[in-house]
Amino acid sequence: LQRIAVDQARVDKAGYRHFMAKEIAEQPTVVANALAAYIDEGGMPALPVDFTGVDRVVLVACGTASYACHVAKYWFEQIARIPAEIDVASEFRYRDPVLSPRSMAVFVSQSGETADTLAALRHVRGQVAQVVAVVNVPTSSIAREADCVLPIWAGVEIGVASTKAFTCQLTVLALMALQAAKARGTIDDAQIAAHVQGLRSVAGLMNVAIDGANAYPAVAQQLAQARDILFLGRGPMFPLALEGALKLKEISYIHAEAYASGELKHGPIALIDADVPVIVFAPPDGLFDKTVSNMQEVMARHGKVLLVSDAHGIAEAGEGVWATITMPSVDAVWAPILYAVPAQFLAYYTAVAKGTDVDQPRNLAKSVTVE
Amino acid sequence: LQRIAVDQARVDKAGYRHFMAKEIAEQPTVVANALAAYIDEGGMPALPVDFTGVDRVVLVACGTASYACHVAKYWFEQIARIPAEIDVASEFRYRDPVLSPRSMAVFVSQSGETADTLAALRHVRGQVAQVVAVVNVPTSSIAREADCVLPIWAGVEIGVASTKAFTCQLTVLALMALQAAKARGTIDDAQIAAHVQGLRSVAGLMNVAIDGANAYPAVAQQLAQARDILFLGRGPMFPLALEGALKLKEISYIHAEAYASGELKHGPIALIDADVPVIVFAPPDGLFDKTVSNMQEVMARHGKVLLVSDAHGIAEAGEGVWATITMPSVDAVWAPILYAVPAQFLAYYTAVAKGTDVDQPRNLAKSVTVE
Repeated sequence: LQRIAVDQARVDKAGYRHFMAKEIAEQPTVVANALAAYIDEGGMPALPVDFTGVDRVVLVACGTASYACHVAKYWFEQIARIPAEIDVASEFRYRDPVLSPRSMAVFVSQSGETADTLAALRHVRGQVAQVVAVVNVPTSSIAREADCVLPIWAGVEIGVASTKAFTCQLTVLALMALQAAKARGTIDDAQIAAHVQGLRSVAGLMNVAIDGANAYPAVAQQLAQARDILFLGRGPMFPLALEGALKLKEISYIHAEAYASGELKHGPIALIDADVPVIVFAPPDGLFDKTVSNMQEVMARHGKVLLVSDAHGIAEAGEGVWATITMPSVDAVWAPILYAVPAQFLAYYTAVAKGTDVDQPRNLAKSVTVE
Repeated sequence: LQRIAVDQARVDKAGYRHFMAKEIAEQPTVVANALAAYIDEGGMPALPVDFTGVDRVVLVACGTASYACHVAKYWFEQIARIPAEIDVASEFRYRDPVLSPRSMAVFVSQSGETADTLAALRHVRGQVAQVVAVVNVPTSSIAREADCVLPIWAGVEIGVASTKAFTCQLTVLALMALQAAKARGTIDDAQIAAHVQGLRSVAGLMNVAIDGANAYPAVAQQLAQARDILFLGRGPMFPLALEGALKLKEISYIHAEAYASGELKHGPIALIDADVPVIVFAPPDGLFDKTVSNMQEVMARHGKVLLVSDAHGIAEAGEGVWATITMPSVDAVWAPILYAVPAQFLAYYTAVAKGTDVDQPRNLAKSVTVE
């Protein structure tokens, strides 16, 4: 708590009503900074990590950072064809996982002081080939105890609900996946350079998404009336749905929960009625039709759907939904970074509509240094 | 629907008010049947699966069956020291997972017709060493397309909310983990025989737990008033918490959600107030103190805790909680099978208190044969 007080003295809200709003708006800049820190003059990823001989990536974190790991699992597997495992730190350390000695273990924490994540790091030391820390505070305990530190360059984050740290974590993990792809030769240099270019353009698209903030308050007024909200997504949009639900819980105290779209009909669809808004993250990717079909099952049960997609997706599937949020079109692989913005704004404007304490929500601390 | 109608003609409620109550009560018998089917005269597991050369187990399912897989992950890793991965079928098949050619892929489905699980099975064929089906219907599509079928011997299940199929799935998966331990030599024959004996005694302890049904209606009257309920557990009790929350959603339409206890303070604790009951599954195992400490954080925020443990656990940690459910003491490793009973009864009696249609909840089908 003392550390946060010091930070607050150093940082002001720069005209924003809340630190959270300011930190959401900073994302195009800090994501670009995170990219610049790890891309060489030739436009290739150049992180101080070595994937030679690595047969598996294990990603461990808590809360929002664990959702960044969950997105990264899809990237490592699909781009670099390297198996990736994820776990929350409190479960990981106590289940005594069976680890490959050739695995790279990655620990992600904004503060670098998260107690469970630090304990998990200590648990694997000596059991794996490399221990990598992805942190915002390079002098933190997790950074000091890792073999290799990748700062995320998000700058000081004051709002208890993490925003810019999440997208900077995603950016660094995306570059790690590209570096792994290069080391393993799963894609060629031209493809990697094109992916880096795609990442760079995401920073610009985040500006467009943030400029679209006026779309949220009207929707948020109605979300603020809800007792329960569901978030749906498939593939890398599933962890985005988890993050959207967590943000909303944290600062609006509404019981939001996320499901992988395909799981909805295996039980939770029983919850659906006209009082439960269902927020669907569905960029027009290879999974779009499947997600839309799940969304239509919700609508057939009188569920109130908010569709977050781009103009094409909304033109194709927006008929009959309660509301839409239109995102700029984006390379599907990097959509999770861009779609963090609506996940954050929906929570932010709903909390503002409810009048809760956005930057210091009840019961929560910025960094959890106890188990 | 036609198939269920035929089944209903063949099976009656045998004096129970609902099929679900009857099926919960059948568990000691069908779990014992499942054990008997796969234990040889020497008291050793004898399933028709071969773990020789298998370097990894991949478990895939939907809904309740996926929680059985989640429990089994802990068993495979801790008893047999074989790495185990889990995924829900709809995510697994579309993320194009990177699989070891030496892995055993296990598909779990009550009906054996679950569309996503069947498609996931077809996706891995040819990519893995062995495809195993754990199903209740041995003539089903998933059974027919697997290299090896392990029927769970639960008998016909009519209630849409799965109960006895879940505990029979757990039983077969437990025996698989023991067989893997034998093949890999991680424990000796005497230890395996002792574990089998432990499993046998669980069937008896389930009778005790079921005889304790009179503990539930009073608690359920109050749970039925809640809009939101949280379930907490650590280690293999985390999937039990997930199952408890799913059951409650399915038949009472209350928004219940489960968290790994250690994750609570990374966000969801913001939800806690005096109106949100928190149900804690905490047998007195190696994780008990950690779970109790998370429970106390809930109580410090005026959360209303229902502690499910045995007499020792309740004596140690029951002070100040809202309510308790006392379970018989059980070997910690097999506690997930026993603790399925309170997960089921809490949902059942809450639904009865609310007056919902327990056996045919709204929006749900017994087996999901579309994506």
